Amino acid sequence: MPTLFLLASNAGEYSRLIESAHLPDLQITSEPANCDIVLGEPKLIRDALPLLSNLKWAQAIYAGVESLMDPALRRDYVLTNARGVFGELMSEYVFGYLLFYEKKILERIRLQESKEWQRPESGVLRDKTLGLLGVGSIGAHLASTAKHFGMAVHGFTLSSESCADVNTYYHGPDILKFVKGLDYLICVLPKTQETNKIVDANLLSALPSHSIFINVGRGNAVDEPALVSALNEGKIAAAVLDVFAKEPLPRDHPFWITPNLLMTFHTSAISYPENITKLFVENYHLYAAGKPLKYQVDFEREY
Amino acid sequence: MPTLFLLASNAGEYSRLIESAHLPDLQITSEPANCDIVLGEPKLIRDALPLLSNLKWAQAIYAGVESLMDPALRRDYVLTNARGVFGELMSEYVFGYLLFYEKKILERIRLQESKEWQRPESGVLRDKTLGLLGVGSIGAHLASTAKHFGMAVHGFTLSSESCADVNTYYHGPDILKFVKGLDYLICVLPKTQETNKIVDANLLSALPSHSIFINVGRGNAVDEPALVSALNEGKIAAAVLDVFAKEPLPRDHPFWITPNLLMTFHTSAISYPENITKLFVENYHLYAAGKPLKYQVDFEREY
Repeated sequence: MPTLFLLASNAGEYSRLIESAHLPDLQITSEPANCDIVLGEPKLIRDALPLLSNLKWAQAIYAGVESLMDPALRRDYVLTNARGVFGELMSEYVFGYLLFYEKKILERIRLQESKEWQRPESGVLRDKTLGLLGVGSIGAHLASTAKHFGMAVHGFTLSSESCADVNTYYHGPDILKFVKGLDYLICVLPKTQETNKIVDANLLSALPSHSIFINVGRGNAVDEPALVSALNEGKIAAAVLDVFAKEPLPRDHPFWITPNLLMTFHTSAISYPENITKLFVENYHLYAAGKPLKYQVDFEREY
Repeated sequence: MPTLFLLASNAGEYSRLIESAHLPDLQITSEPANCDIVLGEPKLIRDALPLLSNLKWAQAIYAGVESLMDPALRRDYVLTNARGVFGELMSEYVFGYLLFYEKKILERIRLQESKEWQRPESGVLRDKTLGLLGVGSIGAHLASTAKHFGMAVHGFTLSSESCADVNTYYHGPDILKFVKGLDYLICVLPKTQETNKIVDANLLSALPSHSIFINVGRGNAVDEPALVSALNEGKIAAAVLDVFAKEPLPRDHPFWITPNLLMTFHTSAISYPENITKLFVENYHLYAAGKPLKYQVDFEREY
């Protein structure tokens, strides 16, 4: 009989949601050694791996599973992550910040405080070019929103070219060609060996000086001192960062005092148990039928 | 031979754009008495009406044509306004401000200034309900953007129910029913006798206290003292106003010091000559062929 162990700070909520789904035969256990299925936070799963002696399937409640990618860790189970649930939230975040800049909302708030009827011209999204570093399910949703707003979309990927909303794809050595004409660069990359400091001084110098960079992927993708320099030297217009090489961001990090840098702290897309439970239920039926699961992570590719 | 007179502060730009469209037979004149066609700002057209003795067709470069609706003015010509060109800009403005609130962008900027890693929870657009006061071409575009973000859309109109992105329509006496369940109320109404102070104390009291009101229509639609009271008393959460009963807003107007009120000054959708020229070209071909023009204003209905 399939037995599930929950490893999340909000395990009680998951327990309630999964029980109310009445999944056939599924038992929820409080004993990790008994379970063949675990659902939870990747870091907690990593720490519990030695105890999970019967583990067959782990469902991560986040998209990022880098904690489980260390080659020294077990890989004798199927790992699935959360996909298809963060795209909408990421679109709200990314386009919220792009429009915040283009509509000059902060500038207008300050003008209002001076009680002056002033009319600075707004920028527009329409006809701008948005570049996606990484085009998975989140990137595809961002591309669809960009299309809704009448934008062109360029995508940089390892090799995939599957999203119809991307006008032009770039790969490998063409990364500087990719960023050259962009108005906005959005990083949605997972943390892997391949993505370390992909946003470096060369890339930032190749971006147009009016461009805005947003990182909602993982902090490892950014060469942080290079980004500080690029903002200080006006090589790009602004940056919005939700993720950092080290989280929480240390209090003496130069980002705190870098101009034209807005930060949010790993909140661009939070994991709603209702959404994750839907993924789990979908996969549980496949698991019970002995069929391949959806959203499987490739340990070699690291995502 | 059709003869065009230009009545806009940027007439030079219009002249250049229209000439480069090489419209058959069209002459641009500097003599108002000679023209049968005028293209320009509604207020300038109104002032020039007595001189335009041969006028057959006036193309307004704005959506709002209330300056030409005074029953004392001539109505012996076809008036067309600008439609279908402002929807995209209005969507960028409205959703920029909705996301600015939901993503708590200003709160996060202030938290960043305190150098604290803090993670207030964001709101989401998804599954919220947006109400449109007026569903013309601008309202229809707002509805399509709301649908893209996974929202429900309610519409209040005189009688039309033509936009497929509106889930539920309301008319006439049902206006308080219409606003009851809304998270956001967006006014896109034209200035007519019917729309005067439609957003009054009763309507504002019927809105949920967490709701946000945005006016991108015309200032006459709002009972301004009632809105000041509603914001002071927390009857609604916030308001964003682009238009006012009197523009520019007088320096002693209470709006300047009303809490949770953001103002922009008639900039939510500016008139781009490239866009208006496209409308004009399309209509010119109809005019030259003796066919009915598009985007005709109904002087009785006032829009």
